[in-house]
Amino acid sequence: MILSALLTSVGINFGLCLLYFTLYSILRKQPGNADVYAPRLVAEGKLEERNNFNLVRLLPSTSWVKRAWQPSEEELFIRAGLDGVVFIRLILFSLKIVGFAAVLGLCALLPLNYMGSQIVIDISDFTNISLESFSISNVNDGSKKLWVHFGAVYAFTAFVCYLLYIEYSDISSKRLAYYYSSEPKPDQFTVLVRGIPKSSTDSLSGSVEKFFSELYPSLYLSHYMVYHTTKIQKLISDAEKVCRKIAFLKSTEKDSQRFGRVGFCGLFGAKVDLLEYYEKKLEDIEDNAKMQSLLTGKEVPAAFVSFKSRLGAAIALQIQQGEKPTEWLTERAPEPRDIYWPFFSASFLSRWIGNVVVVVVCVVLTILFLIPVFIVQSLTHLEQLETWFPFLINVLKIAFVSQVITGYLPSLILKMFLQLVPPVMIMLSSMQGYIAHSQIVKSACNKMLWFTIWNIFFANAISGSVLYRVNMFFEPKEIPIILAVAVPGQATFFITYVVTNGWTNTSSELFRTMPLISNFLKRIFLKETGEIFEVPTFPYNSEIPSILLFGLLGITYFFLSPLILPFLLVYYCMAYLVYRHQLLNVYSPKFETGGTFWPIVHNSTIFSLVLMHMIAVGIFGLKKLPLASSLTIPLPIITLLFNSYCRNRFLPVFKGYPAECMIKKDRSDENNPALTDFHEKLMTVYQDPALKPIHFSGRTDGHNAPLLASEA
Amino acid sequence: MILSALLTSVGINFGLCLLYFTLYSILRKQPGNADVYAPRLVAEGKLEERNNFNLVRLLPSTSWVKRAWQPSEEELFIRAGLDGVVFIRLILFSLKIVGFAAVLGLCALLPLNYMGSQIVIDISDFTNISLESFSISNVNDGSKKLWVHFGAVYAFTAFVCYLLYIEYSDISSKRLAYYYSSEPKPDQFTVLVRGIPKSSTDSLSGSVEKFFSELYPSLYLSHYMVYHTTKIQKLISDAEKVCRKIAFLKSTEKDSQRFGRVGFCGLFGAKVDLLEYYEKKLEDIEDNAKMQSLLTGKEVPAAFVSFKSRLGAAIALQIQQGEKPTEWLTERAPEPRDIYWPFFSASFLSRWIGNVVVVVVCVVLTILFLIPVFIVQSLTHLEQLETWFPFLINVLKIAFVSQVITGYLPSLILKMFLQLVPPVMIMLSSMQGYIAHSQIVKSACNKMLWFTIWNIFFANAISGSVLYRVNMFFEPKEIPIILAVAVPGQATFFITYVVTNGWTNTSSELFRTMPLISNFLKRIFLKETGEIFEVPTFPYNSEIPSILLFGLLGITYFFLSPLILPFLLVYYCMAYLVYRHQLLNVYSPKFETGGTFWPIVHNSTIFSLVLMHMIAVGIFGLKKLPLASSLTIPLPIITLLFNSYCRNRFLPVFKGYPAECMIKKDRSDENNPALTDFHEKLMTVYQDPALKPIHFSGRTDGHNAPLLASEA
Repeated sequence: MILSALLTSVGINFGLCLLYFTLYSILRKQPGNADVYAPRLVAEGKLEERNNFNLVRLLPSTSWVKRAWQPSEEELFIRAGLDGVVFIRLILFSLKIVGFAAVLGLCALLPLNYMGSQIVIDISDFTNISLESFSISNVNDGSKKLWVHFGAVYAFTAFVCYLLYIEYSDISSKRLAYYYSSEPKPDQFTVLVRGIPKSSTDSLSGSVEKFFSELYPSLYLSHYMVYHTTKIQKLISDAEKVCRKIAFLKSTEKDSQRFGRVGFCGLFGAKVDLLEYYEKKLEDIEDNAKMQSLLTGKEVPAAFVSFKSRLGAAIALQIQQGEKPTEWLTERAPEPRDIYWPFFSASFLSRWIGNVVVVVVCVVLTILFLIPVFIVQSLTHLEQLETWFPFLINVLKIAFVSQVITGYLPSLILKMFLQLVPPVMIMLSSMQGYIAHSQIVKSACNKMLWFTIWNIFFANAISGSVLYRVNMFFEPKEIPIILAVAVPGQATFFITYVVTNGWTNTSSELFRTMPLISNFLKRIFLKETGEIFEVPTFPYNSEIPSILLFGLLGITYFFLSPLILPFLLVYYCMAYLVYRHQLLNVYSPKFETGGTFWPIVHNSTIFSLVLMHMIAVGIFGLKKLPLASSLTIPLPIITLLFNSYCRNRFLPVFKGYPAECMIKKDRSDENNPALTDFHEKLMTVYQDPALKPIHFSGRTDGHNAPLLASEA
Repeated sequence: MILSALLTSVGINFGLCLLYFTLYSILRKQPGNADVYAPRLVAEGKLEERNNFNLVRLLPSTSWVKRAWQPSEEELFIRAGLDGVVFIRLILFSLKIVGFAAVLGLCALLPLNYMGSQIVIDISDFTNISLESFSISNVNDGSKKLWVHFGAVYAFTAFVCYLLYIEYSDISSKRLAYYYSSEPKPDQFTVLVRGIPKSSTDSLSGSVEKFFSELYPSLYLSHYMVYHTTKIQKLISDAEKVCRKIAFLKSTEKDSQRFGRVGFCGLFGAKVDLLEYYEKKLEDIEDNAKMQSLLTGKEVPAAFVSFKSRLGAAIALQIQQGEKPTEWLTERAPEPRDIYWPFFSASFLSRWIGNVVVVVVCVVLTILFLIPVFIVQSLTHLEQLETWFPFLINVLKIAFVSQVITGYLPSLILKMFLQLVPPVMIMLSSMQGYIAHSQIVKSACNKMLWFTIWNIFFANAISGSVLYRVNMFFEPKEIPIILAVAVPGQATFFITYVVTNGWTNTSSELFRTMPLISNFLKRIFLKETGEIFEVPTFPYNSEIPSILLFGLLGITYFFLSPLILPFLLVYYCMAYLVYRHQLLNVYSPKFETGGTFWPIVHNSTIFSLVLMHMIAVGIFGLKKLPLASSLTIPLPIITLLFNSYCRNRFLPVFKGYPAECMIKKDRSDENNPALTDFHEKLMTVYQDPALKPIHFSGRTDGHNAPLLASEA
């Protein structure tokens, strides 16, 4: 790819970003868009309604930029929780890394690369310069200049490790501070117990009561059984739909809407009063639900067991309880709002099959995804395209078209395919039997991350030049050479990828294209207002991997092709601007994991550092500087030792809380008069929402009582 | 190798075994050998001295065989602990497996193999039959008979898995029963705390007291600090030597021994009264020790912290204690008699360096060990030998010599080299910073096992035929084929290996060759009687791996070359006979791990099963029966699933004890009046022996007081 093609792509995308930002700054001021641009504020009733029309509303402004930079970490913590703070820290962390790399790369490495003569440069036409002449490929073989690259690799590694240490230490102390400052929370006092053994004399609930009150007479508080509720959940969601229809019918005044045909697609059947019809239906569902609850509401061998102190819960959690290691299994209880109920009812077998299916699907998806990657890859080689579609030859000869095709189209196609992946991953993760939304999101985040690294990075890099060498991938000694041959050549592709995907995605995220369109369509065509207003949850599973990925690109390419760094720098500035704003106004946290995402960030950064070292070993070898190659080998070893130190030093804090903290918190609670109330609340807080009182219809014949009386 | 060579080897070794057994049955009756053949009984004073000479003493008898089979598992448990029981169970377990395999192999597979015609057989001379004609190699390609082998693989796997399950279940319930029946033991109430942070106001001991009594006011009992004692330990061992000399001098009456020269090798210096000289020396050492203890007896940041209940210790053990995960690290305390003191004083750095050195040495040892393996390998190929040593051609033409060289010599040489390995492994393991003898032994056992599997099995199998293919070892798909080509050809070598190594080792173990010789030499030449009598500890680290290895051979070869099975059967019968006897009379247990060796046995059996499956996949492929090859693939998967089930079901019991057990034991102790005494004992039981009162010399000037007053 030549410089002018890159400039075309940058131009197109920068234009798009500007357009998005401008449109956003106008549209956000329209009151009708409040539920798109500040749904959280709307839900919390914090938005001042200003319906008075004025000209300022139609002019773009930059006041939001200032407001996005303003809030302190404390405010962010209050509004978005520790997870939000850690997420912003991730962006800042990447920004620092890319910033340092940019200074090092642009000041020291880029001029050296350009001064090389390995790739013939036609100085007369600057715009026709191949981007490769800015990369390390252009440095002459055996040149002493490569020692500057060598030094840069060491300096950069030291800087990144220093940052990693600082961040890990800071976030883990924040996590402890968060624990110390938190009010008593149900999940701190509760464990989820599974594998409750069947007893001939007691019900499952009775066994739990007996077992824990005998073992821990002074610590045990109460328990709440889990019930089979799949069918009831289905009925409740049906009832909710009907309720919404009734609300809509009640609000409308047109008779044409009130009376209609029911039956197949509304085509057959006599015209009836729809309101009456739906109210009758709702009552039927309620009766059905009541009957179902009596029939299928049987106990699942799982219970939430609450203790009087945090230490009590920790003892039950950390020490094997029953004599048989497959019975009385304890695990950390999620926050009540975080629980994902469907999988309690699932049998072990169905969960096991679910897991196997998910693994198979993941592998298949990863393999099938190579197809779009190959297509994208072939688009960057015009000759290939001309062979496949000979009729395009004339069109492709137009400079602008060919620049668009090589510079813009590949990453656009890849982006479209990539956008399909996060929902698929979240779907797959939710089939694995996790019982908390946060677990599902974390698992999906991990899946996304490794899927992206494999596909965009390895598969893309390898498929292009050395696909036939995949078989030799199992020779560990060859890996650095293979990577050194394959990876640098992909730099230009990644530059356009950053510009197309990173910039445009981020700005369209701010613009919230899809919610805006769906909101618009809803208002124009459906005129349905009974819709329950939902504040979206922040999609950590798709955002963390993509933000991380760009950081990994920055780390790997900083000494190969420093040209990528300024584009990454722009990207992270945009991201910082966009996500701070959004975390405050748009998204509301559905759970709080206390920053347990950070170890993922740490590990993948270490991974990319080691990858970078391996490529460096290969590159210095290829460039006939074997001494530098050998001297680079200690670097990954030191990095991995550093990582193992960090694992020992910080990771345990992310897995649980130390006894010292728990006992201190327990002591400080002893004098808290609110604790008795809290203990009472604890007894019911882990109730399945499906078993909570139903009051959809106006009847008062006892439907407000819980469907299932808890035996706890 | 031909049948007659095998018969030669069997003959030689069977003769050796008979000789050993006969000599043993005579020598064991000589009273002078009591400390060789029943040192434990001597130490316990249970041996009736019968000095009256009679003829029966000089005749071989078989009464000991009967007595070895007699004792029940209960008696074994009382005398040799749960570890002894588990060890004998290992032999019985292997015996059952080999027995089942022998029935299957000799009745069904061996005739089929022999009926094949893949290898040309000269029927006229039975003794010249190649042993290969009994192996699967002789079955014709594509023959339907291979389905019998296929069925045998399935049946055998099912049998082994069934046995594994039964044994694991039985041993884990034995372990729990052992826990329930045990008296209160110090290690159940104590944890070892490391990484005690330095404090500006308190001593380390003070910090420990403060930290644990604040966190667990009702559970904490006491603690015992660890001190730097390296120098004191050195002085004590010096003092012990001098003491022994004094005792010897006092017992002897000859003046020539009482007066001698001291100085360089006793050559220079005037003649002095040695008794006086050594008594003076002893006093010097004692004074020195007292001074050293004041100078270097400083606290190590480690302490044994005891709790009032088992649950208390478990809480401290299982939950991270301090806020910083690198401080207040807790680990299971070993039994007091099991502690290996030297490494408490070692710094983290020296332990870390120790670990790195050990890893490097292990790798180097494994590589260097290929040299004797290659030599052994070449000895089985006579032509090779003739090329190297042309002057041997005439000698080698003698049938007997060549049979000895191909049948007996290779495994003898290997055996000699192999006997060097266990002491090296135990030395390496003791450098890794373990603080218990049992940990060292377990680690050495693991090292031995994998070293042996790699060297004797893989390296030997691969070096012979497909050394040049090691590079292709990294292609996972090829592994079954490579193994299928390489492994069966080694069957004949392993048959002689079982005979030479297994049979002879076991019988010479019974004969106790080395202790007998050293005892004899001591009595003839040294005439030193002041030697402290030491009962040897059972060498689990060398015995478990070798017994296991033969089981692995049996599993892998049962369908490849069933001829090996009868020899293995004889071996295990011998082993059962020999080790039951020995565990009762010879060895005394130095520690009790409660059968934690069993998971090693389980895992390596699973490993060899999967290896066998892989070879089967390869063999059926080579033998042109692809359907059988494909149908074998589910087998390793099922085996691994079975293994993961066993891990969940049984392994936790071997890692620790469940809360239910601990609380029950604690409750039953509450009414035990001896508990107060026990708690008092607990306060001093973890004292470093180097700090215990010294009373070597006759002085009474306070030397009986502990060198260091405990601050606990």
